[in-house]
Amino acid sequence: MIEPIGNQYIVARPVYSANAFAEDHKKKLRYHKTFLDNLKVCCSCSTQKAKRIALSLFPIASWLPAYRIKEWLLSDIVSGISTGLVAVLQGLAFALLVSIPPSYGLYAAFFPVITYFFLGTSKHISVGPFPVLSMMVGAVVLRLVPTTSTMSLDIFNSSMSNDSSTDEYKVMVAATVTVLSGIIQLVMGVLQFGFVVIYLSESLISGFTTAAAIHVLVSQLKFILQLQVPAHTDPFSIFKTVIATGVSYGFDFKNRFNVAVVGKMQSGFQPPITPDIQIFQDTIGDSFGIAIVGFAVAFSVASVYSLKYDYPIDGNQELIALGVSNIFGGSFRGFAASTSLSRSGVQESTGGKTQIAGLLSAIIVLIVIVAIGFLLEPLQKSVLAALALGNLKGMLMQFAEIGRLWRKDKYDCLIWIMTFIFAIVLGLGLGLAASVAFQLLTIVFRTQFPKCSILANVGRSNIYKNKKDYSDMYEPEGVKIFRCPSPIYFANIQFFKQKLTDAVGFNPLRILRKRNKALKKIRKLQKKGLLQVTPKGFICTIDGFKDSEDELDSHQIEELDQPINLADLPFQIDWNADLPVNIVVPKISLHSLILDFSAVSFLDISSMRGLKKILQEFMRIKVDVYIVGTDDDFIEKLVQCEFFDDEVKDSIFFLTIHDAILQILMKKDDSTSKFNSSQGKDAKFDFTINTNGGLRNRECQVPVETKF
Amino acid sequence: MIEPIGNQYIVARPVYSANAFAEDHKKKLRYHKTFLDNLKVCCSCSTQKAKRIALSLFPIASWLPAYRIKEWLLSDIVSGISTGLVAVLQGLAFALLVSIPPSYGLYAAFFPVITYFFLGTSKHISVGPFPVLSMMVGAVVLRLVPTTSTMSLDIFNSSMSNDSSTDEYKVMVAATVTVLSGIIQLVMGVLQFGFVVIYLSESLISGFTTAAAIHVLVSQLKFILQLQVPAHTDPFSIFKTVIATGVSYGFDFKNRFNVAVVGKMQSGFQPPITPDIQIFQDTIGDSFGIAIVGFAVAFSVASVYSLKYDYPIDGNQELIALGVSNIFGGSFRGFAASTSLSRSGVQESTGGKTQIAGLLSAIIVLIVIVAIGFLLEPLQKSVLAALALGNLKGMLMQFAEIGRLWRKDKYDCLIWIMTFIFAIVLGLGLGLAASVAFQLLTIVFRTQFPKCSILANVGRSNIYKNKKDYSDMYEPEGVKIFRCPSPIYFANIQFFKQKLTDAVGFNPLRILRKRNKALKKIRKLQKKGLLQVTPKGFICTIDGFKDSEDELDSHQIEELDQPINLADLPFQIDWNADLPVNIVVPKISLHSLILDFSAVSFLDISSMRGLKKILQEFMRIKVDVYIVGTDDDFIEKLVQCEFFDDEVKDSIFFLTIHDAILQILMKKDDSTSKFNSSQGKDAKFDFTINTNGGLRNRECQVPVETKF
Repeated sequence: MIEPIGNQYIVARPVYSANAFAEDHKKKLRYHKTFLDNLKVCCSCSTQKAKRIALSLFPIASWLPAYRIKEWLLSDIVSGISTGLVAVLQGLAFALLVSIPPSYGLYAAFFPVITYFFLGTSKHISVGPFPVLSMMVGAVVLRLVPTTSTMSLDIFNSSMSNDSSTDEYKVMVAATVTVLSGIIQLVMGVLQFGFVVIYLSESLISGFTTAAAIHVLVSQLKFILQLQVPAHTDPFSIFKTVIATGVSYGFDFKNRFNVAVVGKMQSGFQPPITPDIQIFQDTIGDSFGIAIVGFAVAFSVASVYSLKYDYPIDGNQELIALGVSNIFGGSFRGFAASTSLSRSGVQESTGGKTQIAGLLSAIIVLIVIVAIGFLLEPLQKSVLAALALGNLKGMLMQFAEIGRLWRKDKYDCLIWIMTFIFAIVLGLGLGLAASVAFQLLTIVFRTQFPKCSILANVGRSNIYKNKKDYSDMYEPEGVKIFRCPSPIYFANIQFFKQKLTDAVGFNPLRILRKRNKALKKIRKLQKKGLLQVTPKGFICTIDGFKDSEDELDSHQIEELDQPINLADLPFQIDWNADLPVNIVVPKISLHSLILDFSAVSFLDISSMRGLKKILQEFMRIKVDVYIVGTDDDFIEKLVQCEFFDDEVKDSIFFLTIHDAILQILMKKDDSTSKFNSSQGKDAKFDFTINTNGGLRNRECQVPVETKF
Repeated sequence: MIEPIGNQYIVARPVYSANAFAEDHKKKLRYHKTFLDNLKVCCSCSTQKAKRIALSLFPIASWLPAYRIKEWLLSDIVSGISTGLVAVLQGLAFALLVSIPPSYGLYAAFFPVITYFFLGTSKHISVGPFPVLSMMVGAVVLRLVPTTSTMSLDIFNSSMSNDSSTDEYKVMVAATVTVLSGIIQLVMGVLQFGFVVIYLSESLISGFTTAAAIHVLVSQLKFILQLQVPAHTDPFSIFKTVIATGVSYGFDFKNRFNVAVVGKMQSGFQPPITPDIQIFQDTIGDSFGIAIVGFAVAFSVASVYSLKYDYPIDGNQELIALGVSNIFGGSFRGFAASTSLSRSGVQESTGGKTQIAGLLSAIIVLIVIVAIGFLLEPLQKSVLAALALGNLKGMLMQFAEIGRLWRKDKYDCLIWIMTFIFAIVLGLGLGLAASVAFQLLTIVFRTQFPKCSILANVGRSNIYKNKKDYSDMYEPEGVKIFRCPSPIYFANIQFFKQKLTDAVGFNPLRILRKRNKALKKIRKLQKKGLLQVTPKGFICTIDGFKDSEDELDSHQIEELDQPINLADLPFQIDWNADLPVNIVVPKISLHSLILDFSAVSFLDISSMRGLKKILQEFMRIKVDVYIVGTDDDFIEKLVQCEFFDDEVKDSIFFLTIHDAILQILMKKDDSTSKFNSSQGKDAKFDFTINTNGGLRNRECQVPVETKF
């Protein structure tokens, strides 16, 4: 039992290194699933599993039998009709973005919904055209089908051209790209690649959709401005009212628009197309972008509703559903479909309960296609343009986020801005790829330059904080506590090393080399018989000791990195005392270094190598290193990677900083008491040497090695 | 002072939340440098700074005046001559990889060294051709200059062709690509982009150079196999001995080769070329790859020696030096130069002290170019091919690393394998880009699926470990401690949420919604007067209570997510006791949740949003949440991002798990004592209700809200 004793944190236990703790408390043997085990589970077959997979491919088989007709049918009908009206207008409007005649927008609003009805898992999204996606398809169309007009985004002029075969070809391109995107989505869904949508963070989507909105704005603006030139019929006020009612009910913002000419509306359906392989090859990159963006938008809207109404959706099944819908829709000359936020909002807020509402909206579109399409011919394109633009208002408002993000998190702000720039400059497809890459890079950046700090004790208990932050801190003499608050891997091991070197104030490798050099010289003196050992120290006699600066060759330089070997000398050396006049070794007061690794989530091979080297360098200059705060897993990983050897042992791991500090203090006490008992009072000696013209036979004493 | 007391860890202090600690120990006010401050420092001008920059551009101005002629000159001369001989042969050999006549290799071994002498910072590397780089240039040459032979890598045949203008053009292409790479390197150096080399980890370089070695092997194999066909002159045993001596001295492996025909050697120099802009455009991607690889290899070799001999090198200055060298060398028809590991090894181990050795090696090459080149004409190409191949042995041995890496770190192994595959399949330039992207992705992967765990107390002190690992663990009743050992950001916030939900065993949002639904029904009962309050509880009389399952609309559903508001009710509700028969709410035993965030290095905007939502959901079902182990910086960041509000306060942060546990226990004690004093013994009541056909006016009591 743990008991709070008088509102105090009171603990009394042994000081624990990782090894000591493991002795006191035995770990249970756990079987860790290996990679092969996981593979077996994934690849196992059974009739049950097969049945489950087959059922999941057709979600309609689950929800349709459970359909509550009495309660839901009416709301679905109302929702379906409202959504259908919106879908018609949006279909026409977004077709303009694709640079094809508006009537094809109705196909895009019809066909995908049918297949989604059978295959989709979301109950609330309205499948059909989406401005950003239409923009992306339109960009491909314009790239592959150069128009005669110099203003390549001049949609108004293009409809006036007598070249209806250009229109035909444009539709073909749009449809082909759609089919290809559908295929990509289907393949991704089957291969379970739905997880990629995780990599589209909110900042990225925000920046991306804003850039897309700018693209749309630019493309439509020319069209809007040309409005003045040709004079057309007056507003169809009936339409205005009917549409204004339906639209303003669905959208949060009100659109007022005048009705004029849309042009010839295709009545009925057209035979399916045969995709052109050449177009496939030319547009594979763009199709990838369209596939991903379409899925991402549909999935994020579906997620919102799935969370709100508490039912599960399956990302991979959504991919399959959208893929098949696009293949189907594209084959019948529709263009890429996903979901429109506003239209889905209409479907949900008017009471849509299931995709029956979606099916009904498709029926409304169907009625327009086969029967009453001609009614919309007088509809002016500027109306549709305004509709498309109005849809974008929400997206354009996202500019306000920049300021907010900058104050909160500079990396997220940077992601937003760079995504925006990439999408504007490189186009939507390539821009998306570049943004995702950049975004992942920021994760690396965040961990690459950690704010390392030196810690010290606050309040004389077991709390250690940043030394710079508090006054009245206690740091034991000769001890440094260094904290690295981030994983250490190939990209920041050098940074870590640099920060550590700065923190302790010296470069351990340099000190080691100098000591080894000094040792060579002392050995020479010893061999020449100029140093003699006495019980108290020893005497050296030197006459004109000259320190010859021999150049060291390559191998000799490598030897300087090795541990200091005093085995052949009859005495020990205290590197912090004075050495012979010509032998200079910087003195260091540090004897213990504690590395706080509680936030170091992982090391990789490169950083393990680097870390081991650092540990060796410190140990070789007699600085004890302790590592604290690590998981058991961490140490096991190091064992697995053959990190430990005779020099760097696993005894350096301690549970907490306080454990390590206590260990250091106890070691010091032990050492001091041992020394005092064996040596008598005077523990330190001086090391002086004869100099030319100075004293001869002066007593030189070499101090015995002490730690503190 | 901290004292170890009898080898024990003994601590007695107050229980500290972050706020309580801040009250006891005031933080010092520190000025944090803002982004603008850093910018000002970077952009500040002064004559001193200008002078420093000018000097650093010409390192020779620093080391040449300090040159110790007596000690160093002789070793430099010896080294220069040895290296020169090796450079000649390697230049000829690597020119074959570029698919150009061998004599141009001498230009590549000569010109770059001259400029590097003035601009480079490394004292030991030997600048000149490098097999991998030559391969990359050769790939570009072969792509732009289709040969008549069907075997596109058939170097032997191409030299036999009478089309010397093809050779001319090939040389032009190689030289142009070299100049472009040089320009890219120079620009990168000036823009201080030298840091990109950090992103080439050891595993990546290992996999990449192995793939490059395979490329070389494949290209040379055809050539070697054809060796049988033409018969040529016998070994030039003099050469064999001279070369065998020089080469086997430099290389670790011995090459025996027969000498035969190299072909016409250009004597003297040729006028510089004018780069073709069209080639620039066609090869920009490859040139980037060549620039980066060339720099990376040169820099890593230079780093090894700079570390060994303890002198600083500057990555950006190296870029400038290599860039100028390549521009210079390319202009005079050399091809891309970097450094060869073996040749640098020769220069260093034969005693090279400075780039004087390099300069002398260039003079040797010069002698061959202008005077004795004809001597090498009988040199057989297979010899050179063998030389190139022999150089690769070390690289091919790297295959052994796969097994080693797999055992140690699966991610590093994956980086090696994917780099290898990318470089083989996509070619060296594009393969490098793809590998770096993949490698950075692994850093994201490592943090994306952290091994979350539930902790519990071991040994009844202040140590908390993974509950699965030890027997005899203590977990206070109704408390869960959840640890996430990795940063939380947009790509893993959903994963974190899922793991947390699995750990506590229920979905807090679902519980909240059910409670709110239940509350609605209780309110209805209350309004209908079917529930009455008494001092002990209350009585309810219900005749045929029917729970009507009304469909909730969109807004009503949103209301279910709000905090449970009992203000208007005259009683409290204990959700863990029995409720009216038709009202079912899952009971949860959890009352406190501790999140161990000691290894969560950072949160981003997306994860902050997600985390806040999670905290709200738990708090609204009366589960207290505590977050422990965070830095002061962490909390400040949350404040800056407006994370806290009336519901989620900064009082939930505690210093350690043990502090939080003690706080929970103290709260429980307080609560129990308060309750006992005000209520008397019987704290719990039952909630029963009339059912149809059951008892009437049966006493129903609603329990008062208690926490434990």
